[in-house]
Amino acid sequence: MSAFARSRWVEEPAHVRDCSAMPAGFRHAGIACGIKDGAASGLDLGLIVADPPATVSAARFCDSGVLAAPVVVTRERCDLHAIRAVVANSGNANAATGEPGIEQARRVQEAAASALRLHPREVAVASTGVIGVLLPGERIAAAIPALAGLLRPQGAIDFAHAIRTTDALDKHVSVEVMLPSGTVTLSAQCKGAGMISPRFATMLCFIQTDALLRAHTADLLLGATVKRSFDRISVDGQLSTNDTVILQASGASGVAVEPETEDELLLREALDAVARRLALRIVADGEGARRIGCVRVRGGGEETVARVARAVANSPLVKTALFGGDPNWGRIAQAIGAALPGSAPLRFDIAIEGVTVARDGAAAAFDLGALVAAVAGDEVLYEIDLPGEGAEAELFFSDLSYDYVKINAEYTT
Amino acid sequence: MSAFARSRWVEEPAHVRDCSAMPAGFRHAGIACGIKDGAASGLDLGLIVADPPATVSAARFCDSGVLAAPVVVTRERCDLHAIRAVVANSGNANAATGEPGIEQARRVQEAAASALRLHPREVAVASTGVIGVLLPGERIAAAIPALAGLLRPQGAIDFAHAIRTTDALDKHVSVEVMLPSGTVTLSAQCKGAGMISPRFATMLCFIQTDALLRAHTADLLLGATVKRSFDRISVDGQLSTNDTVILQASGASGVAVEPETEDELLLREALDAVARRLALRIVADGEGARRIGCVRVRGGGEETVARVARAVANSPLVKTALFGGDPNWGRIAQAIGAALPGSAPLRFDIAIEGVTVARDGAAAAFDLGALVAAVAGDEVLYEIDLPGEGAEAELFFSDLSYDYVKINAEYTT
Repeated sequence: MSAFARSRWVEEPAHVRDCSAMPAGFRHAGIACGIKDGAASGLDLGLIVADPPATVSAARFCDSGVLAAPVVVTRERCDLHAIRAVVANSGNANAATGEPGIEQARRVQEAAASALRLHPREVAVASTGVIGVLLPGERIAAAIPALAGLLRPQGAIDFAHAIRTTDALDKHVSVEVMLPSGTVTLSAQCKGAGMISPRFATMLCFIQTDALLRAHTADLLLGATVKRSFDRISVDGQLSTNDTVILQASGASGVAVEPETEDELLLREALDAVARRLALRIVADGEGARRIGCVRVRGGGEETVARVARAVANSPLVKTALFGGDPNWGRIAQAIGAALPGSAPLRFDIAIEGVTVARDGAAAAFDLGALVAAVAGDEVLYEIDLPGEGAEAELFFSDLSYDYVKINAEYTT
Repeated sequence: MSAFARSRWVEEPAHVRDCSAMPAGFRHAGIACGIKDGAASGLDLGLIVADPPATVSAARFCDSGVLAAPVVVTRERCDLHAIRAVVANSGNANAATGEPGIEQARRVQEAAASALRLHPREVAVASTGVIGVLLPGERIAAAIPALAGLLRPQGAIDFAHAIRTTDALDKHVSVEVMLPSGTVTLSAQCKGAGMISPRFATMLCFIQTDALLRAHTADLLLGATVKRSFDRISVDGQLSTNDTVILQASGASGVAVEPETEDELLLREALDAVARRLALRIVADGEGARRIGCVRVRGGGEETVARVARAVANSPLVKTALFGGDPNWGRIAQAIGAALPGSAPLRFDIAIEGVTVARDGAAAAFDLGALVAAVAGDEVLYEIDLPGEGAEAELFFSDLSYDYVKINAEYTT
């Protein structure tokens, strides 16, 4: 995929451009080890290794009360600032699997550490797929030596395939970033199409760069980036049990990015653009999705705008209207009202694709034909103004289609 | 419809039985006045009148921040303890219509008062249908004299038809209630299929009885009943702008129901059974619904169990699994976790139709074949036990089907 081709909602910084090269110091691989039985692609186990021992990293996880075993193991047993390798599988989330699930995740972690001659605390594990089925750790551990043998500098495509579940769109990006101190490469592989909600990442995303970063800088950059990208999307409002985002910086480019420099600022912009592009890609690939919506809410306090944005983005009525190309702004008004009980009469304005459809809480005169044409596009912008100054929230969401139902009614335990 | 035919979740008190009679003192009517253009049934305006001047009443409304004009007018301009008449229309919600919407609602209220020789404060108005389109108050007002001419003791079926929108199932119930002091009749007409969420009624329901009640008793009875029925259902998690429930007691049976008597207790049971039956009927008629789910959450505090029950009932992943007859309990676990962030590791048990599928937060051994057969029925029970004692929440919800998408992608502004 091109990193900056399709959405008006992704900035295209001048110092960032698509490339086919991968960041120096990294190797990737993917293999089929039989976790997904009968799946078309077959690839279901992926591995990333950063060769330089001085690699730094940062990580973020979802905050569900039901955390998958790989999240628990990575969070509790890894040095999150020094992750050298990531083993990730699809076809099985290893969530709600209790102590046996933890043991299987550790077995995978240890098998990878052994094959790569690393300490287990340097190996992160991640899983995605069906919840509640014990991970076949023995089978995975047995496949790891062969997987390690497939590691190569251009292996990211295989890795990206191996972490897919219901994803239809490719989610691999590689860009070069021109910094004052030199050029670095930034690459990311991501998965996510369902169980996607704005309360953090709800997906897997692995980001590599050959920039030379301090661990603290990696952590700051990742935290800021996640807030502007994966935190702002919703396919179905359903927070996952397995979300994991890991940034690794190998330093292999020799380009040092020092704190509070122009280098840091520009790298952050690049990271931001890549993560935002991938986040939108997840929304575009939302299970069964045809169109992407963006809701921007302004006015009132931080909590108010966030609550309204989520209510609109997660409303099945708004989502089906988006799918149907129906400029039914009454459903936006309903979602606003439901999000802010007791606030009637509420003075709000709503604009769809720049056309004001409601002003001061009531219908405005508008050209229905023009609006119908505007909502027939791939991306639809909903702007909501509430009384008061200040806060603003933005959220990207997919529509709700027949295919979402089909995928989720037939995607079996 | 039979009041007590189809759900194991509705009690059938021995002192309550179906009847075709209507409560004495009430007349109903329905007419087509062209609000719904092109609709098949045509009926779109309904009227209820309680003839005895001593009629008492009680009412409840939704708490949306975007309240429809009829809700505002009824709440602010009626004597809610002495409602004699109700005018209700379908095809137009008169919500998000600003001051002109209020004026149209008042015009309807005044036209009905004039035709019935009542004071406007004795006439409640209610609307359901598309949001954001001004109610054609003049057209409705012009139709009211003819509508009043159609009022008759057996007119409830016409009234019930006139308030339908996407409803496919009939929602009219009439029962006789054997009280120690005598027999009274209880009748209710209800509508609701979409924009249905557990935070109160999210529908229209009009209940009549010929019991002789004090206004305070009517209010207490209605409040308690709503909490156990319309407060506990979700079709799509979307709180409406127009919800209205009105109970009217004409006293025409001469059977007085005094506070804190066996009469009151038994009438409350009857009201409860009728409201619960109608609430489940709304869920069964949830737009496109094939199956009803019931989630019961036990353990922990009141807020915890309510939050978990709503998360499960509103999850599109759980709803599509219910539709697909898929016993995918992993999605229940995901919803529990999402509802209780930061609580990992959470020890929960899940049973589906009495089969324990997860214990202490992890998969339990179970007979998949038996479970698949159990979830193929019309009603599926999900029981969740959380750590701790005490609280319990129960919620009824519909599945999410192709037809929900179809109805909502094609139901036009």
